[in-house]
Amino acid sequence: MQDGIKKLVILGSTGSIGTQTLDIVRRLPERLQIVALSGHRNVELLKQQADEFGVSPEWIECGDEANLERLATHPDADIVVVSVAGAVGTRATVAALRRGKDIALATKEVLVAAGEIVTRTARESGARLLPIDSEHSAIFQCLQGAPDNSVAKILLTASGGPFREWTKERMESVSIVDALNHPTWPSMGRKITIDSATLMNKGLETIEARWLFDIPMEQVEVVIHPQSVVHSLVEYHDGAVIAQLGLPDMRLPIQYALLYPERVDSGLPRMDMTQLAKPLTFEAPDTNRFPSLRLARDAGAAGGALPAVLNAANEAAVAQFLDAKITFPAIMTLVERTMHAHRPLENPDLDQIAAADQWARLTVTQLINEDPSLQWNGAAER
Amino acid sequence: MQDGIKKLVILGSTGSIGTQTLDIVRRLPERLQIVALSGHRNVELLKQQADEFGVSPEWIECGDEANLERLATHPDADIVVVSVAGAVGTRATVAALRRGKDIALATKEVLVAAGEIVTRTARESGARLLPIDSEHSAIFQCLQGAPDNSVAKILLTASGGPFREWTKERMESVSIVDALNHPTWPSMGRKITIDSATLMNKGLETIEARWLFDIPMEQVEVVIHPQSVVHSLVEYHDGAVIAQLGLPDMRLPIQYALLYPERVDSGLPRMDMTQLAKPLTFEAPDTNRFPSLRLARDAGAAGGALPAVLNAANEAAVAQFLDAKITFPAIMTLVERTMHAHRPLENPDLDQIAAADQWARLTVTQLINEDPSLQWNGAAER
Repeated sequence: MQDGIKKLVILGSTGSIGTQTLDIVRRLPERLQIVALSGHRNVELLKQQADEFGVSPEWIECGDEANLERLATHPDADIVVVSVAGAVGTRATVAALRRGKDIALATKEVLVAAGEIVTRTARESGARLLPIDSEHSAIFQCLQGAPDNSVAKILLTASGGPFREWTKERMESVSIVDALNHPTWPSMGRKITIDSATLMNKGLETIEARWLFDIPMEQVEVVIHPQSVVHSLVEYHDGAVIAQLGLPDMRLPIQYALLYPERVDSGLPRMDMTQLAKPLTFEAPDTNRFPSLRLARDAGAAGGALPAVLNAANEAAVAQFLDAKITFPAIMTLVERTMHAHRPLENPDLDQIAAADQWARLTVTQLINEDPSLQWNGAAER
Repeated sequence: MQDGIKKLVILGSTGSIGTQTLDIVRRLPERLQIVALSGHRNVELLKQQADEFGVSPEWIECGDEANLERLATHPDADIVVVSVAGAVGTRATVAALRRGKDIALATKEVLVAAGEIVTRTARESGARLLPIDSEHSAIFQCLQGAPDNSVAKILLTASGGPFREWTKERMESVSIVDALNHPTWPSMGRKITIDSATLMNKGLETIEARWLFDIPMEQVEVVIHPQSVVHSLVEYHDGAVIAQLGLPDMRLPIQYALLYPERVDSGLPRMDMTQLAKPLTFEAPDTNRFPSLRLARDAGAAGGALPAVLNAANEAAVAQFLDAKITFPAIMTLVERTMHAHRPLENPDLDQIAAADQWARLTVTQLINEDPSLQWNGAAER
């Protein structure tokens, strides 16, 4: 970091988090500078971004894993924003951490699949792992200044998704349109919106929290808070609860991660507590209707490659649902069956984790073919 | 502090805060020890407390100001809990701070009347001023780990009192029984309950916050939150809001002040976010019906002896109301008229502040006699 300017790499700059990260850089040009960008399929937008932020052509990539690693270890980079889709960012994250570069992490799959390796690497090099997920950013903010061993519980809030009040029976007939209708957070991707509807997004977040904050799974809880104003809470041993609140705007957690620990006014819209649209409510999640939370807790507690299997099986099953091949409840049935079929691995390395991921995806396809009751029989468009 | 045991003086041990402080000491005998106690009129209870906690007879007092000062400067004391009624604890607080003893402050009048002197003394000696008021403890907790110059606003929550939804006209006929009926916090004293009904308690708290957190009055706001679950909030410059939540139990802020910065489980009842009695709501206060907030802001911004005048006039007027001599709205009319009659003083010392306090009390009596419209004409019992 020179002259107070932080140099950034963004992996996944054309996605939702990537473009919002660039919005923050645009607001704070005297504090943040881009040195490398990676996109996925939107090459036009990537070039346009590189032009606007003056990134040299050799440091932009529409990339595979090896390319991501090269960008993430850019010699000038102070901090790498990891906002690619899925576990593909894991090796790049580890490589950057190993060189002492801070990570601003939006891709929760990296910690879900390889939390032990990623956090160990950060500890060894002294690099920081800064959360971008709104819930984890909230927790991180609520933990500032906390004495050691003072945390009793982490409470991740969840909107509850569009099916919060649906019966188990009714959920059999959920359509793609129903599932893509997220109640509070605007403009998320399709995959994460389905994960919000199954609550698997929250399940993955409990595992992410376990690693980010070095806390046992049983001290990570989920509370349904449909208004999405309280972004998460920490309960301390004395009974005090600290919460972070704000508008549903990802730019705030992004900015906090990029400038941590500083807080500056970059002109983001502000919340007025006296103008909230609705009263704030909190309820316990129903793990009978939403088994994802139980599955994630089991996977997180067991460790090894099981969280990677949970995540990969879920990704594969969600893709099949979005492809009109399986019913909505079948997503969790497939995750659970794949987890049961997995043979435990102790201290897997990144290759073994990647292999378990591949195995889980194949297993999902196989399980669908074996059991017609999982298959969708309605109209393809739904 | 020897062997991790903190030695405490409690000024006002027989009152509500005092007895709850002793409950915390009872729960944490290996961490907290009492070396001196003062009470007011309840000599029996004071003796009983001294017996239970092994306080030597020469270190208990039912005291005037000079006695309080002697106790507050006990040579072994690490921390002095100031929970006497009203500004009588000011000189003892200053004396203790001067000798480097930390203060756990429940008596807001000390900071309202002499905030500049008290905070300067603490700064000079390096002693800490730790809040016990639940709102200020909440703010203090929300500020832990905050970088310098990062706070945009302090938001003190207020239940709104029993007359939150009453019209101005209806408030003319408020009875003593009506006003003593506080909606959320159990078992407070009569004076503070009336101050909650006029919102002057919150007004005094804005001045207290201004001094405790060294922040201009215009950055201290009040938000009505009838459920008293969120104890207060801090808005940072980036727009993030951090809040502290908990049961309405003063023992938590007391324990936090006594053990700061540690957080231990002393067995206090815990809040379950999923079992809140009511949804949480927030609204802006109506300073037309509740002029106390405007008067406090004016006094806090003007400084000098005006906050002491505000506080003394309010104490005198509340006493007259509880004595069935004046109407409920007359309390604020008297405070406002007394403030207008006060001649400004620059940098008053403690003697000048005490003189302004006395003058304000006499002025209230005089103003009542001069204006029959302030006088209560109903039944004496109400």
